[in-house]
Amino acid sequence: MRPLAGSYLPEFFHEDHSLPKPSWSKDMRLLFDQFMKKCEDGSWIHLPSYNYTLFQRSQDISAFIHAYLPTASKLINEEKLLQAKIFTRNFEDGLGFEYVMFYNDVEKRVVCVFEGGPYLQGMPGCLHGGAIATMIDATVGTSAMIAEGIVMTANLNINFKRPVPLCSVVLINSQLDKIEGRKLFISCNVQSVDEKTLYTEATSLFIKLDPEKQV
Amino acid sequence: MRPLAGSYLPEFFHEDHSLPKPSWSKDMRLLFDQFMKKCEDGSWIHLPSYNYTLFQRSQDISAFIHAYLPTASKLINEEKLLQAKIFTRNFEDGLGFEYVMFYNDVEKRVVCVFEGGPYLQGMPGCLHGGAIATMIDATVGTSAMIAEGIVMTANLNINFKRPVPLCSVVLINSQLDKIEGRKLFISCNVQSVDEKTLYTEATSLFIKLDPEKQV
Repeated sequence: MRPLAGSYLPEFFHEDHSLPKPSWSKDMRLLFDQFMKKCEDGSWIHLPSYNYTLFQRSQDISAFIHAYLPTASKLINEEKLLQAKIFTRNFEDGLGFEYVMFYNDVEKRVVCVFEGGPYLQGMPGCLHGGAIATMIDATVGTSAMIAEGIVMTANLNINFKRPVPLCSVVLINSQLDKIEGRKLFISCNVQSVDEKTLYTEATSLFIKLDPEKQV
Repeated sequence: MRPLAGSYLPEFFHEDHSLPKPSWSKDMRLLFDQFMKKCEDGSWIHLPSYNYTLFQRSQDISAFIHAYLPTASKLINEEKLLQAKIFTRNFEDGLGFEYVMFYNDVEKRVVCVFEGGPYLQGMPGCLHGGAIATMIDATVGTSAMIAEGIVMTANLNINFKRPVPLCSVVLINSQLDKIEGRKLFISCNVQSVDEKTLYTEATSLFIKLDPEKQV
């Protein structure tokens, strides 16, 4: 298993957001405990999650961007970079994205336990399609990063079958289907905790980034 | 042109977030002014945008959910609904989603001028794929609502061609391609302001909701 996001990030890490908080619902906490139990024999691994700020090491980040995303780097505002934070970790506890991921190396699966708070509303009472897409991208993206290091989403194809009720806990199950050269194919579904309701199905394509090949 | 979101919402409306703010960049303000000029002869319409709270009228919202989303309604926590806010309008000014949309009725096009702030980061220096998916869903969703009233996203198929630099202004151009029964097909792309860079292309399918047909 490779490091999750290259060698730049660990030094910016703060609080691990993947650990239980008072804002978690009982269902969320219950599932966390169930998966932690599965981690005891090593078949599953609990993945930590941080919301790093780039404040002190922005030069390293600039170097990363220049190497991996040279086209984008011309347009990036260095001053704004200092404020940058991971999209899914920017709401106050209990209002936005609450989630924790687990990884099974043998089965090449990442499972995300996710509760979308009241600030993620689309239609009244339901999660915004974009909030679901975001957590799908985060989950399949984690699977891709574990397999191949630094990657970029190239395609997301999402079928929204039923609206996800706001503040309910769901399971996002992802599966690395195949790797072909620099391409990674990962599929995923979003289900209710009792697995009786299939909310969403998706396929994704990721590309391993290569400093030699411009994006 | 039908009302944008049924008869429930207007009473909860607060500040119009689609009007210029001090946090808008110069590029964003410039494009706003250009589109407002196009609105003068009536060919384009400026679309307002609100972040309503459901505090005082949650019973009306419950009635809406029971009518249109009966399956989801069983799971919705009424207390949490009181806190609910539209996903794309929950960040402080300048940190998250800054956007304004315009509509051309003859061409059936919705254009969104969008600047993604530093709290929407995915890869260092770039917008999170989920943040782009969110604004695509919001833009094509607006197009679908204008055409058919109350709708739900059924499919989003997004090709991410190039990373979008954090804090740059982009144009999301959507086009209603066809309506077949309750299905609406809407395509869309995300471009740089000078139209020289194509960042993202997407197709979408929306379903008009019908209280007689359960989702």
